[in-house]
Amino acid sequence: MAREQIYNFSAGPSVLPASALERARQDLLDYQGCGISVMEMSHRSAWFQEIFDAAKAKLKAALQVPDSHEILFLQGGATLQFAAIPMNLLAGGTADYAVTGIFSGKAAQEAEKYGRVHLAFDSASTGHDRIPPQEQLLLSPDARYFYYCSNNTIYGTQWHYVPEAAAPLVCDMSSDILSQPVDLSRYGLIYAGAQKNMAPAGLTVVILDKALAGQELPCTPQIMRYQTLIENDSMLNTPPCWCIYMLGLVLDWLESQGGVTGMAQLKRERARRVYEFLDNSRLFHPHAQPDSRSDMNVTFRSPSAELDEEFVRGAAARGLLNLKGHKLAGGMRASLYNAMPMEGVTALIDYMKEFEAKHHV
Amino acid sequence: MAREQIYNFSAGPSVLPASALERARQDLLDYQGCGISVMEMSHRSAWFQEIFDAAKAKLKAALQVPDSHEILFLQGGATLQFAAIPMNLLAGGTADYAVTGIFSGKAAQEAEKYGRVHLAFDSASTGHDRIPPQEQLLLSPDARYFYYCSNNTIYGTQWHYVPEAAAPLVCDMSSDILSQPVDLSRYGLIYAGAQKNMAPAGLTVVILDKALAGQELPCTPQIMRYQTLIENDSMLNTPPCWCIYMLGLVLDWLESQGGVTGMAQLKRERARRVYEFLDNSRLFHPHAQPDSRSDMNVTFRSPSAELDEEFVRGAAARGLLNLKGHKLAGGMRASLYNAMPMEGVTALIDYMKEFEAKHHV
Repeated sequence: MAREQIYNFSAGPSVLPASALERARQDLLDYQGCGISVMEMSHRSAWFQEIFDAAKAKLKAALQVPDSHEILFLQGGATLQFAAIPMNLLAGGTADYAVTGIFSGKAAQEAEKYGRVHLAFDSASTGHDRIPPQEQLLLSPDARYFYYCSNNTIYGTQWHYVPEAAAPLVCDMSSDILSQPVDLSRYGLIYAGAQKNMAPAGLTVVILDKALAGQELPCTPQIMRYQTLIENDSMLNTPPCWCIYMLGLVLDWLESQGGVTGMAQLKRERARRVYEFLDNSRLFHPHAQPDSRSDMNVTFRSPSAELDEEFVRGAAARGLLNLKGHKLAGGMRASLYNAMPMEGVTALIDYMKEFEAKHHV
Repeated sequence: MAREQIYNFSAGPSVLPASALERARQDLLDYQGCGISVMEMSHRSAWFQEIFDAAKAKLKAALQVPDSHEILFLQGGATLQFAAIPMNLLAGGTADYAVTGIFSGKAAQEAEKYGRVHLAFDSASTGHDRIPPQEQLLLSPDARYFYYCSNNTIYGTQWHYVPEAAAPLVCDMSSDILSQPVDLSRYGLIYAGAQKNMAPAGLTVVILDKALAGQELPCTPQIMRYQTLIENDSMLNTPPCWCIYMLGLVLDWLESQGGVTGMAQLKRERARRVYEFLDNSRLFHPHAQPDSRSDMNVTFRSPSAELDEEFVRGAAARGLLNLKGHKLAGGMRASLYNAMPMEGVTALIDYMKEFEAKHHV
């Protein structure tokens, strides 16, 4: 079956830039005349070291990472960081957690194994439809850090400000990293699974203030000890080489598109168009409160679960993939990550209009 | 510069079957008509679930994994398992460790954080040049498990028998998994980083007796808890999708080559030819004791470090890559993993002969 254009709205792993995939395909059997694939390279080889260093340098430039901070290329996903962060930074003390979705909730639960968790906010009672304003954050005086998740992939909410706290900020940026400029000097640690805006699944990027490392609990596995990882430049053991290579290709594309400033303009425009349609729709309703809406994951629903299902099925039939909402949230979700072209947004809105005209009574 | 044939003797990440790389290249932009790359697929999609299930089924078939055991596809490498194993299986008790190389030594050191480690053997005093016979293993009566590493990549030694112990056997098979049949019913747990005989770096395969799971220490991170990973079929979070896909392609190739029985014949023949040359050489000397020699990693040296260096440089110039020994062992190392064609072995021996003729006085 010949398909026209495919647009992949998956929440992650998700769409990657076509140019990065094309370069990966060209290099797959023989990287730049080396005679072997990147997948076959020793991580200690000069070839791979160059790929590694270049990806790190490009990420440092794209996010303007200050010299006080170190970039780590790790494995294990955000879920491993849910434990690594309190093992390294909490060490039996108290940390403030703002729970605004499933993943920040899981992070808080995991941290309880390693110290005291104080809930600075919890949006569970309103179905995680909002982000608290600064004045609603209950901060404890002795917190080792303040933890939050900048964008909630499942419920489609996003922090549109950087919270103020006396303690270092720790932020899960898995689903909005590289989508906008960020002042990393305000953060003790940020991290992100790569599989949304950066690379294929299997790479986790951690960027932390080096001054915070080295005070972990004795039970911390060596491979989760930030100080050791810094000392070994992420190569205590074999890193996820292919994903790091792909990150480099994605960062080349990102730079060609105007970097994170260019990404921020595009993401705002993509999201604006979809929310504008939803706000005027007689059939669809957005989930998140207006001032908490995510530019990355737009969550919405029709009046019934049956209609939601029909919408998702019809969308897939015309090449608009993965619009089904997360099972915990229901409804629909359109993930509009960096690599989603504006044409995909247009195609989505066109389909929503058609669907509305057919089903609105 | 046009190169003739490249043979990659890297100890890992290492050579992959050409047919698997070719299929990956063909599918890279559009997997089997899906319209998207495997790298862009949601891990919850039907497409990826099929890839995942097929890879797991092929591995189960290739290794004849009994139903009592579960296959896990994880991240973090062997180094994460150095901690995960004692966190899950030791729980404050005693375990026997046979230290026959660097990685089993690191595993023993890490385990000390989580219980008592008893050294059943340690070959450090002879430069890790040997594997103990059964009668030299000092087993403790109350051990929770007996730990060993079946093949020592750095020093080029290999266990040619399965040790007898009352406690469950736990084995790091990172560098010889899938190279020979193995009776998994004799093991409590085996594991392997994928980057030698299975797939690109970024995937760790754990195969464990399900009866052993569920007794972990309270400090065990959720993502390292075997019971949770079993319950979630390795998808507590996003798995390393690309590596799992590649594993499936490698297993297709493996099956076409006669499976692990075919691999065992080939590896014995590859190793036999190289050791035969070394045993008769007037210039080169193998490192490992004859009865402990590895079929996967052949370690050897010339009379001087300068000559070793010249050998490695000259080899690379004719497309025989990555023959330098590990920095801890020195000398040379030829890794002869599953995907190394016999032509590579012939080319290596031809070069060694030439080099010997030139330098033997």
